[in-house]
Amino acid sequence: MLIVQKYGGTSVGDLERIQNVANRVVKSADAGHQVVVVVSAMSGETNKLLGYAEHYSKEPARAEVDMLLSSGERVTSALLSIALNEMGYKARSMSGRRAGIVTDASHTKARIENIDPEPMRKALAAGNIVVVAGFQGVNEEGEVTTLGRGGSDLSAVAIAGALEADLCEIYTDVDGIYTTDPRIEPKAKKMEKISYDEMLELASLGAKVLQNRSVEMAKKLNVNLVTRSSFSDAEGTLITKEENIMEQPVVSGIALDRNQARISLSGVIDRPGIASDIFGKLAENNINIDMIIQTLGHDGKTDMDFTVPQNELNAAKRIVDTFKNDNEIEDASVDEDICKVSIVGVGMKSHTGVAAKAFATMAKENINIMMISTSEIKISMVIEEKYAELAVRSLHSAYKLDQ
Amino acid sequence: MLIVQKYGGTSVGDLERIQNVANRVVKSADAGHQVVVVVSAMSGETNKLLGYAEHYSKEPARAEVDMLLSSGERVTSALLSIALNEMGYKARSMSGRRAGIVTDASHTKARIENIDPEPMRKALAAGNIVVVAGFQGVNEEGEVTTLGRGGSDLSAVAIAGALEADLCEIYTDVDGIYTTDPRIEPKAKKMEKISYDEMLELASLGAKVLQNRSVEMAKKLNVNLVTRSSFSDAEGTLITKEENIMEQPVVSGIALDRNQARISLSGVIDRPGIASDIFGKLAENNINIDMIIQTLGHDGKTDMDFTVPQNELNAAKRIVDTFKNDNEIEDASVDEDICKVSIVGVGMKSHTGVAAKAFATMAKENINIMMISTSEIKISMVIEEKYAELAVRSLHSAYKLDQ
Repeated sequence: MLIVQKYGGTSVGDLERIQNVANRVVKSADAGHQVVVVVSAMSGETNKLLGYAEHYSKEPARAEVDMLLSSGERVTSALLSIALNEMGYKARSMSGRRAGIVTDASHTKARIENIDPEPMRKALAAGNIVVVAGFQGVNEEGEVTTLGRGGSDLSAVAIAGALEADLCEIYTDVDGIYTTDPRIEPKAKKMEKISYDEMLELASLGAKVLQNRSVEMAKKLNVNLVTRSSFSDAEGTLITKEENIMEQPVVSGIALDRNQARISLSGVIDRPGIASDIFGKLAENNINIDMIIQTLGHDGKTDMDFTVPQNELNAAKRIVDTFKNDNEIEDASVDEDICKVSIVGVGMKSHTGVAAKAFATMAKENINIMMISTSEIKISMVIEEKYAELAVRSLHSAYKLDQ
Repeated sequence: MLIVQKYGGTSVGDLERIQNVANRVVKSADAGHQVVVVVSAMSGETNKLLGYAEHYSKEPARAEVDMLLSSGERVTSALLSIALNEMGYKARSMSGRRAGIVTDASHTKARIENIDPEPMRKALAAGNIVVVAGFQGVNEEGEVTTLGRGGSDLSAVAIAGALEADLCEIYTDVDGIYTTDPRIEPKAKKMEKISYDEMLELASLGAKVLQNRSVEMAKKLNVNLVTRSSFSDAEGTLITKEENIMEQPVVSGIALDRNQARISLSGVIDRPGIASDIFGKLAENNINIDMIIQTLGHDGKTDMDFTVPQNELNAAKRIVDTFKNDNEIEDASVDEDICKVSIVGVGMKSHTGVAAKAFATMAKENINIMMISTSEIKISMVIEEKYAELAVRSLHSAYKLDQ
């Protein structure tokens, strides 16, 4: 097999941990696999360098930040290669450039545009373990760029796609994706497999493990992604296409998002285009609206409720207040004590009664559902935040995820 | 003017010092000059990274060492650019690769083969201060290489040559080249100008400031080299071609080399080829012979004395002992308590009596001259080490260097 393995900052956090990574890599090589390793900077290194830059400037030029930060991954890749050499294995470090990673021109948040896999293929064919500095590439001008948060994961997935690797293993300090947050429901089970789409909907469960950007890219490039722990031998969770999952459970997991706030507008003048005006203005200001419900009001007026991320609440409130000042809204109130519970599963497509069971479970626990939204594979409910854990545990049990 | 300025590890040793460098660079820019800055890694950084590598391996692969070490200069170049930007100046960092520096393939001690000055010229033409990561280039394969000790100086000189810069300023913690070591002779004067050839012969005076490799390259590329301090505003010493120095003193400086030892062979069988055998064997073992004298012996035997660097003495002794064991030499003795005093000056070419004055000065102080060697612009004498300071001071005064 050809395996791409990615090790994050904590996994290469010090010299001993880099040795641990070398030991793991060697196991895969000994098992007869070709291995490309993608590494992050040693943990703390990137922040140290950013701190240096901020010593001089609050807003350092982004091209310079890229030059600065890209050095961290280069160091790790060289050290890991040296450790592998010393264990008797042929290994070669490659910068993003050497690995053929070409990005667009947006410094500090570049998007990978193309990978020329030839240099990696050649090094693999010559019997090398290839160690690539993650998080970086070069733009068409040949300047170093970095990929932003989660960038090393993106490097790994893109490389796996370009090399048509059999597997892309993302090593972190978490051993996989669980049916729900184990800190809330200790009976949560690690999933063996999950589809890309479910993973995307379950973002809040996997956010610390995998960013949506990486999952989206894996889906697009058809890369079999495994998240597993670099500190244990436990099998991780395979994120793959739906067809690869034989026995699809109806519900795969329960996600909880506490980072939501609700804005309730009452007495909204019911003129054509008013919704478009309000939400257009919010969109212009880069505020992410999640759920929206509109209820019929009275006297030619309606009520509207919508949710926004908590850190965008103040900005959103200021915008709706301008409509209040223009007398197009009677009142705008906010509620931060809410949360969003979601039930995710591709099996929903072919099974009925999934939503009904969710509502019944909430009713049984006397939890009031404030808002509901559904997609093909997800049901989300906004409830009072104090019921968050109770809701998650009840749903986890109702859908028999603990079995 | 187009000026290349190089700042070494101590000059960029911490964030405040990098700010000082920025202040200096800006002065040159404000004076209307185009400036290319070449920077080293922050002091201690290279050793830290080497220490990391040695954690894994006593002999890490040299290509990996280059990948590792080249990150240090990249960090400094980005930080300096950010500092310059913040002061309101356009600046762009460039890795060795971006600056067009192509080297041969010898990792960790590569030689610069070619520089494509176009990217630097373009950035300068666009009004930028160009900040180049020193000590590094790329080989024809596109792999990062480093230039070995004094590598950033070489980068600066080569860049000055490629850009046909008016001046290449090497900033260190020393403010120039002195007529002799001021710790020995406090009356030593800083030279205003010195020729390349004199500088090469005076290596021991400038060794901590400039390596011969850089001076040789400056000579070859006809680069006006200035060494000066980054911690003061004092003018430095200009190292340039002989024709640029109008009033050439007969003697420019007195150099002292304490790192010499003498091996005396007595009763060497006087057969054809014996010298070639002995010195051939020493050369094979990379032992650097400096001075040799052969004196007529008796009974068909001769005596030979030669000097070697002290750290090569033991190896040299082992080799001559094999000749003793073969009965080709009667005895081999070593003397570490010697030193070499040299008088250097291009004016010697056209003045007579320079050597006679040296010998007379030694005689007046009752210093016995054990060996003598001369070149067109240098007279070297081996004397007992205890007379080192006395000899330097007497000669310094005899040639009126303190005036």
